[in-house]
Amino acid sequence: MNSNLIWLDEEPEPRHEQSATAARARQGQLTKPPGALGELETLAITLASLQGREQPSLERVHISVFAADHGVTEESVSAFPAAVTEEMIKNFVRGGAAISVLARALNATLEVINLGTLGGVAIAGARAVMLGPGSGNFLKAPAMTEGQLAGALEAGRESVERALAGGAQLYIGGDMGIGNTTAAAALACALLSAKAEALAGPGTGLDERGVERKAAVIRRALEKHSQHLRAPREALRRLGGFEIASLAGAYIRCAQLGLPALIDGFIAGAAALVASRMRPGAEVWWLFAHRSREPGHSAILSALEARPLLDLGMRLGEGSGAAVAVPLLRLACALHAGMATFAEAGVSGKL
Amino acid sequence: MNSNLIWLDEEPEPRHEQSATAARARQGQLTKPPGALGELETLAITLASLQGREQPSLERVHISVFAADHGVTEESVSAFPAAVTEEMIKNFVRGGAAISVLARALNATLEVINLGTLGGVAIAGARAVMLGPGSGNFLKAPAMTEGQLAGALEAGRESVERALAGGAQLYIGGDMGIGNTTAAAALACALLSAKAEALAGPGTGLDERGVERKAAVIRRALEKHSQHLRAPREALRRLGGFEIASLAGAYIRCAQLGLPALIDGFIAGAAALVASRMRPGAEVWWLFAHRSREPGHSAILSALEARPLLDLGMRLGEGSGAAVAVPLLRLACALHAGMATFAEAGVSGKL
Repeated sequence: MNSNLIWLDEEPEPRHEQSATAARARQGQLTKPPGALGELETLAITLASLQGREQPSLERVHISVFAADHGVTEESVSAFPAAVTEEMIKNFVRGGAAISVLARALNATLEVINLGTLGGVAIAGARAVMLGPGSGNFLKAPAMTEGQLAGALEAGRESVERALAGGAQLYIGGDMGIGNTTAAAALACALLSAKAEALAGPGTGLDERGVERKAAVIRRALEKHSQHLRAPREALRRLGGFEIASLAGAYIRCAQLGLPALIDGFIAGAAALVASRMRPGAEVWWLFAHRSREPGHSAILSALEARPLLDLGMRLGEGSGAAVAVPLLRLACALHAGMATFAEAGVSGKL
Repeated sequence: MNSNLIWLDEEPEPRHEQSATAARARQGQLTKPPGALGELETLAITLASLQGREQPSLERVHISVFAADHGVTEESVSAFPAAVTEEMIKNFVRGGAAISVLARALNATLEVINLGTLGGVAIAGARAVMLGPGSGNFLKAPAMTEGQLAGALEAGRESVERALAGGAQLYIGGDMGIGNTTAAAALACALLSAKAEALAGPGTGLDERGVERKAAVIRRALEKHSQHLRAPREALRRLGGFEIASLAGAYIRCAQLGLPALIDGFIAGAAALVASRMRPGAEVWWLFAHRSREPGHSAILSALEARPLLDLGMRLGEGSGAAVAVPLLRLACALHAGMATFAEAGVSGKL
């Protein structure tokens, strides 16, 4: 292993069970029938166990969007040209993308990390961690060299450490990269022993023939690398992409440093899946925001035993589905902290 | 018909199709794959059609919570004592209830309307529309007199007119009333020709035997009133309750005055169901916030062809599920107004 990746083996932080117990007891005393707030009660208790306080709060949310190009776009697997990755980095920075609008609405900090695009030049306003002009075409070679994989994982780790240094109480990782649903589906197929046809989807908008072509590309990639897919990190190196590796590194680091992560959709889900295989136990630090319309996402969620909060047919990436779920977490905290107890309000209990 | 209820026959406002068309066109130009924001795109377009502007907004949200007691609580149909209705009115007013906390978090206006409880006295801070000491026990007589039904419908109408006068852009109606899931289930059974066992649920927390007893009470009520349930208004009078009637009146008035209503859970759903039967076409002004865990709610949503935004296992009432969905509507508006178009951002279109 690359010597600077020793941190990957660190244990996840334990959860604070006492805070969970206290929060559960408080929920039972609030002026409502027990359980009547459904998932919002579970969320408050879970956040209490992660933050180590009976009354959690989520004022400070950090969003890191990782962008990179994908060599596999040579195989015509996307409805949009690869140039869009760079164009969207500029759009993130200028504030016109969905995640930019959401970050403003949520008063969240947003940083954009450029891991390497076809143009190969730095883009003003985006943090440059240039690992190359996108990942390699995994039909011809591994998507990443060892050095690129290490650099991408490190970029994820560093983003979490910056978030914590800034006082973040919740971490959201986003993705941008034309071609990345192909990489995510290929990686998920390898980790779940699933068929390409089962996990390949329309991505940004392929038609039925396009999805078939994409599945065929994934099938060929799985065959080419079949002798090297058992170890999750090697599967990630061969079939993933820069931004997927960064997200995986970030999710592992969140668990190790005790920062709750809110996981977005399909790309983020594939990153979480490989992260959970690389660092089992990290999952307890992750909350799942939404179910993407991309068909492979449900297989990933099942494998992670994750029940996401929202199911709005979103499939944009960028961290957008996670951002949209933030108000639910905040309202869960507000209800938990702000509601009166039966005793305080003089309300009678159950018969 | 009571002469002061002539307003019930007024037509719903038409939607603004031109604004919907303009909003749909704008969605197609925003920097994302078409449809990638899922339901958030539909919401923005729907709100545009309701507000008559290409770029809708929802800063000013109004919440009216209607509270009343139910004579049917004599039949031991609730896990909580009827005294809780009054105690919770005080809790709403003092700011300790879930809807109080949510209203503050959303910067929404909240008013509490006391339609009549067992104690029969006015409660400081709640608007008093005292129709009697709760509705009658519908195992013995109609739940409401003609005068009480008219008063309750009027209270709903007036709350919408106050909301509009205050500049509200969205109306939420909430309910409080120990025993009201029994009334709502009985009314829904009558309107949907459904069996009591199919729609009776645990409410605030009945056990299995309690739910069976509740279903038996509903069955007997449906038999007793069977010759008088064809007309929806008469079914409402016989089996409903004050707050259910007020919500029905409010939802009809929202449609007539062109104020979008965000419908909460099971009680609100039963009110919307009877409102749609009393004033067909009103439904186009309603958005459905969430699917309650109360089992009868899904039957109501199906009958209204409603696909709610959230499914969080909530079953509290008070308008709480609707309030929790407000941020989704606001984020849909923010994305719609704030995202750059492909042209503005210089992003390439689909291949």
